[in-house]
Amino acid sequence: MSVTRPAGFRAAGVTAGLKASGAPDVALVVNDGPDHHGAAVFTSNRVEAAPVTWSRQVVADGRVDAVVLNSGGANACTGAQGFADTHRTAEHVAEVLGASAGDVVVCSTGLIGELLPMERLLAGVDAAAASLADDGGPAAATAIMTTDTVSKQAQVERDGWSVGGMAKGAGMLAPALATMLVVVTTDAVVEADALDDVLRAATAATFDRIDSDGCQSTNDTVVLLASGASGVTASAGDLAEAVSEVCASLARQLIADAEGAHHDIAIKIRSAATEADALEVGRAIARNNLFKCAVFGNDPNWGRVLAAVGTTRAAFDPHQLDVSINGVQVCRAGGVGEDRSLVDLTGREVHVLVDLHAGAESATVWTNDLTHDYVHENSAYSS
Amino acid sequence: MSVTRPAGFRAAGVTAGLKASGAPDVALVVNDGPDHHGAAVFTSNRVEAAPVTWSRQVVADGRVDAVVLNSGGANACTGAQGFADTHRTAEHVAEVLGASAGDVVVCSTGLIGELLPMERLLAGVDAAAASLADDGGPAAATAIMTTDTVSKQAQVERDGWSVGGMAKGAGMLAPALATMLVVVTTDAVVEADALDDVLRAATAATFDRIDSDGCQSTNDTVVLLASGASGVTASAGDLAEAVSEVCASLARQLIADAEGAHHDIAIKIRSAATEADALEVGRAIARNNLFKCAVFGNDPNWGRVLAAVGTTRAAFDPHQLDVSINGVQVCRAGGVGEDRSLVDLTGREVHVLVDLHAGAESATVWTNDLTHDYVHENSAYSS
Repeated sequence: MSVTRPAGFRAAGVTAGLKASGAPDVALVVNDGPDHHGAAVFTSNRVEAAPVTWSRQVVADGRVDAVVLNSGGANACTGAQGFADTHRTAEHVAEVLGASAGDVVVCSTGLIGELLPMERLLAGVDAAAASLADDGGPAAATAIMTTDTVSKQAQVERDGWSVGGMAKGAGMLAPALATMLVVVTTDAVVEADALDDVLRAATAATFDRIDSDGCQSTNDTVVLLASGASGVTASAGDLAEAVSEVCASLARQLIADAEGAHHDIAIKIRSAATEADALEVGRAIARNNLFKCAVFGNDPNWGRVLAAVGTTRAAFDPHQLDVSINGVQVCRAGGVGEDRSLVDLTGREVHVLVDLHAGAESATVWTNDLTHDYVHENSAYSS
Repeated sequence: MSVTRPAGFRAAGVTAGLKASGAPDVALVVNDGPDHHGAAVFTSNRVEAAPVTWSRQVVADGRVDAVVLNSGGANACTGAQGFADTHRTAEHVAEVLGASAGDVVVCSTGLIGELLPMERLLAGVDAAAASLADDGGPAAATAIMTTDTVSKQAQVERDGWSVGGMAKGAGMLAPALATMLVVVTTDAVVEADALDDVLRAATAATFDRIDSDGCQSTNDTVVLLASGASGVTASAGDLAEAVSEVCASLARQLIADAEGAHHDIAIKIRSAATEADALEVGRAIARNNLFKCAVFGNDPNWGRVLAAVGTTRAAFDPHQLDVSINGVQVCRAGGVGEDRSLVDLTGREVHVLVDLHAGAESATVWTNDLTHDYVHENSAYSS
């Protein structure tokens, strides 16, 4: 399963000693072709890590032969030495695989502001290259975990081809991506030019709509690789659908494993004038700490939902807003609706529905509650 | 002291039974003139409480005779009945005082989405009117407290005139105001037309630059009243300075008493291209949950500061950013600076200095850390 489900890919995950815990921390995904199409999207944070700066250049020509990923260090805010280290990592991977460094995407995740222990990392690359396998996807998915408690993998089957994927990231999820590394693979035969559009459409509707804590990482990267090894041609539309399905599954898994979360919250905005309005409102609610604390406390505090909606520029009349929480319409026409004590928030999944009564568009944003465990995980340890 | 320090004002605070705790919950501030100039600024939240809608109309003509304030209920998201209740409250105050309802500002704070117990509130107004006193400021300041642990009062003396103020609000502080009610009084003789500008300038530089948890309330109101009772004329510039001083003191008191906070954090942005850039960057850091958790954990995690700066549109080069925390330059030129272990975060006050190296403007935003106590206060109880 995972990134090695599609034909033409090998992967590996090994322990290089970057993590004090001794858990696996270096992963390698190799595209054996015959095609070597690649596309990627990156964090929109202007303070970007060295591997992001490097990998933007790699994918510019549409060819990617391999992706090397490490946990245990983000290589962000590490200056010229950090970039040199990323370059050296790509050179090393290229040498071991007989490829060009310019076709090697590099991803890193972990603490910001510290240099990577390069000798260990390069030895880890050697070990990963030596253990590359057709069924190495799960090992790779495990090696990219940081505070994740489970590895995230997904795959979908189509007629003669497939799409597989892996992801890590369990906290700093935010629009325009997250502390999130994702590799998606396919063995479909596709136009190289189509890959970038396919990936952007898929991430816009999935990863860009999960927002665990509103914080945006310096390292987020989502890579899509196409090997063509199935020999079966897929239309851009069919590929987009399959890639979106894998991305949606991975995004849902990320929310389900967010740092310290007790609830996964789906915020659906309907009857918006525009999709952009729906997204703005959804994100405003997703980032409202008071609302997120209320959900943690199993309190259907719809007033906090309205207060968040009111901070946006979306089209709506405050006296027309309806809010339902887990199916109970606790706010009707901007005022008190059904009895809030009817709302059951004891389950993990919470559904908030806001009706703007302003149009026909809708969108759903996923987030998490704000809990003691979140504060603990992000205050007791550096990350 | 407080709002009754300037001549021409009486105030009172009484227990009307709106709060289950039995603490004081209705306050009245009366301007006995000879002038009755008034101005106010309100929340920019589009979901505004009934008293905000009412009071906007009251101050439109520049005359305010009295301010009635209640804790124990926000009267927000309460529909037509809520507005009628606010209207009735103003009518009742006017009747008792022999004034016009159209000159009575109404302020409410407490839980959203519930109607006020009007009979108790109106009886409270009667009791407050009966106990109006020249030294009633402290009682009024106490009666507007919600989760505040101490009352907030301030005053400054000038040559023959003074400015006094009181505030409540200990959580939802945010730019464009907060769950915050503020009344500021002066006995200076001033042009009625100047009052609005004076107040807007003062709040823009004080209350608008405190942001405890990024959440914006439905009820925020800051009222400035001028009685002219000192007989001493003040220029708009002198009054603006004095009002700003009182507002700055009250704002600092609000941050010091924010819900569950363990640290008060001053984020100074310097060498910005514009003041707007400095404010945008300061607010982005102030709203970054990961940074706020790190401060709670006494962790000088400058990487989280940079990651927050990177989300803004301000002018800067990521490789030029410097960050100092409590005087230690932990980040230099976008990379590792002085040893972070030199930073002492055990005190209540934390000073973060970010140098954008992009111009000559600067601004300071105050916020709080994100703590277990914040989560507890906002999840265990409705508010």
